[in-house]
Amino acid sequence: MFEQKRFLMIPGPTPVPESALIELAKHPLPHRSPEFSEIFLNCTEGLKNIALTQKAIPFIYTASGTGAMEAVLANVLSPNLKVLSVINGVFGKRWADMAELFGADVERIVLPAGQAVKPEQIKEALEKNKDIKLVLVTFSETSTGVVNPLEEIAKIVKNSKAVLAVDAITGLGAMPLKMDEWGIDIIVSGSQKGFMIPPGLAFAWVGQRAWDLHKESKFPRFYWDWTKAQKALEDKTTAFTPNVSLICALKETLRLMQAEGIEQTWKRHERLKQCTRRSVVAMGLELLTDDSSASSAITAIKKPDGLEVKQIRQKLKQDWQIVIADGQAELQGKIFRIGHLGFVCDRDILTGLSALALTLEDLGFKVNASWKDVYNQTLKQFS
Amino acid sequence: MFEQKRFLMIPGPTPVPESALIELAKHPLPHRSPEFSEIFLNCTEGLKNIALTQKAIPFIYTASGTGAMEAVLANVLSPNLKVLSVINGVFGKRWADMAELFGADVERIVLPAGQAVKPEQIKEALEKNKDIKLVLVTFSETSTGVVNPLEEIAKIVKNSKAVLAVDAITGLGAMPLKMDEWGIDIIVSGSQKGFMIPPGLAFAWVGQRAWDLHKESKFPRFYWDWTKAQKALEDKTTAFTPNVSLICALKETLRLMQAEGIEQTWKRHERLKQCTRRSVVAMGLELLTDDSSASSAITAIKKPDGLEVKQIRQKLKQDWQIVIADGQAELQGKIFRIGHLGFVCDRDILTGLSALALTLEDLGFKVNASWKDVYNQTLKQFS
Repeated sequence: MFEQKRFLMIPGPTPVPESALIELAKHPLPHRSPEFSEIFLNCTEGLKNIALTQKAIPFIYTASGTGAMEAVLANVLSPNLKVLSVINGVFGKRWADMAELFGADVERIVLPAGQAVKPEQIKEALEKNKDIKLVLVTFSETSTGVVNPLEEIAKIVKNSKAVLAVDAITGLGAMPLKMDEWGIDIIVSGSQKGFMIPPGLAFAWVGQRAWDLHKESKFPRFYWDWTKAQKALEDKTTAFTPNVSLICALKETLRLMQAEGIEQTWKRHERLKQCTRRSVVAMGLELLTDDSSASSAITAIKKPDGLEVKQIRQKLKQDWQIVIADGQAELQGKIFRIGHLGFVCDRDILTGLSALALTLEDLGFKVNASWKDVYNQTLKQFS
Repeated sequence: MFEQKRFLMIPGPTPVPESALIELAKHPLPHRSPEFSEIFLNCTEGLKNIALTQKAIPFIYTASGTGAMEAVLANVLSPNLKVLSVINGVFGKRWADMAELFGADVERIVLPAGQAVKPEQIKEALEKNKDIKLVLVTFSETSTGVVNPLEEIAKIVKNSKAVLAVDAITGLGAMPLKMDEWGIDIIVSGSQKGFMIPPGLAFAWVGQRAWDLHKESKFPRFYWDWTKAQKALEDKTTAFTPNVSLICALKETLRLMQAEGIEQTWKRHERLKQCTRRSVVAMGLELLTDDSSASSAITAIKKPDGLEVKQIRQKLKQDWQIVIADGQAELQGKIFRIGHLGFVCDRDILTGLSALALTLEDLGFKVNASWKDVYNQTLKQFS
């Protein structure tokens, strides 16, 4: 079958609209030019709109998402700074480990796989340890598809001395996140998720309370430095040679996001999630996360008895050219993950679920045919 | 005039071949897939060939070139490590400042603008201070177009206890650089220079002596960590989500470089340099650097009396859609820089020089018409 028929239903890279791909195919602009400055500032404004902030400053890094997570730490840490870390999976654990490696004194709230943190757990931890200066939370944990109750968490952290930093790499653009209204101090995200372009850019939105902590920070930094980035932004440019092609593509996808409208984008992702979750349950499969803490970006499904995740993924790829993800770390081989983030429409989910159903049948798993009715009802209910 | 006729003759981003642009326009591959692993390993091998090394390991970062420069320091520094820094301009200064910021004890050899370091200066410094563990040298300083005598420098450093790290961001691919034969320990480069693709990837080649220093290093690092990158490379992948699109484009330009042959690539750049330098001198202009230390990547030309660099650049852009660079830092407004690096042919130089000559004439500078004969003779001599 045509290799180019490959269809990604993984949590990133997500599908890229043609109009953004075309931007990437253009000869790169000189990065120190008025033309590029205009595009760069346009993206900066667009990023504010997506995070619903007018107060925070968005910085664009030429880096992977992990780079932006490192950047947060490099900009606010000082030796032995007290950090509270919420760990729901691989990426929450990575951030906590990174903070510890960078000399922070890290307290961890570790949740079982697929479970969200309870806001009270954070409240208790902050009350017990008044010295906590930084709280690290994952919005949508890519490894499990669990989403943490960010609005309530922000309310709690805002009333403490701590600054709240949120890894929204997978979640931003898929689910409501209101930086100013909720009072979140730092958000990070990446280009290859809700922003619908290939990997290579990472973003950090920095609010005033975060900036205050940055001013006190005694961590050596250069490439990640917010002060340098801010100074460059005042000059309508970046501190270092940026990935100009991806920034041009970002301008295009931010335009598409603006055209859809952020509330509609959230609604679409909610629908994609509900259709996916209810349909696979109707098929006879089991979900990893509860409805109450299920991400709109990705759905994690438990492997049915008697089948292997590897088998399912291989057959989906071979027969239908659809790529889905395995579990990560201790969940490898136990769950498979379907991404429904970014440039994804209802037809894509119907396609993916139909192919999944046939694949499971072919592998000997009896799929309940009623899933299509459930899909159809869910689609109508959430339209 | 068509905006898309824009023609870059700056030191980066350099022009990109169509076949590489087309790679960028493709839907991104999943980064954890056998297809991508194959491309990634192909690039790793290709990078070895360009630096003429079989012993060093090339790491591919999703970052600007500055990121790879930071990576070198993050992987080898320890508090108060003695560093010798050669400064020929903006980028050499940046690396030294970065090392100091990261806690190194930095000794600087500062050269006047446009002047190369003398190998004896490095020899003396190393003999005077036997504790020096790291020597930072710029191969081709982008801000002045000066090239340092790397082969002789490497010979000296190799016989000391120090490790030699070379910023070859602009020079690699334009001029002979033989990592193994000369005994260079670390090289860094970037995608938007000799590698002929847009900015967004940076490279670090790490040799055995550098690896030994890395093992002793006590600097906190995560995103830049060579040990993590090496472990991932053994698994045929990257430690963090890479810019898959640029890596696919890199595979294509490495193929083009391989097809031309590295010696031919050097020869072509030597010809582009000689044609540029001799022609502008024939026009009546003055060069910043001596022939003995002139980079094949970029030529810096002193502003003629009575004209402004800004005028020349603006008119070249307006009339001919050609973008050249101003000087940087204290050289701003004093020199202009013409890039002739990467995907550049003889016709491009003839075009650029012809437009420059007309522009200067229009601005009232009397151009000596004999420059075309000089161009023609030089072209034949170096073909």
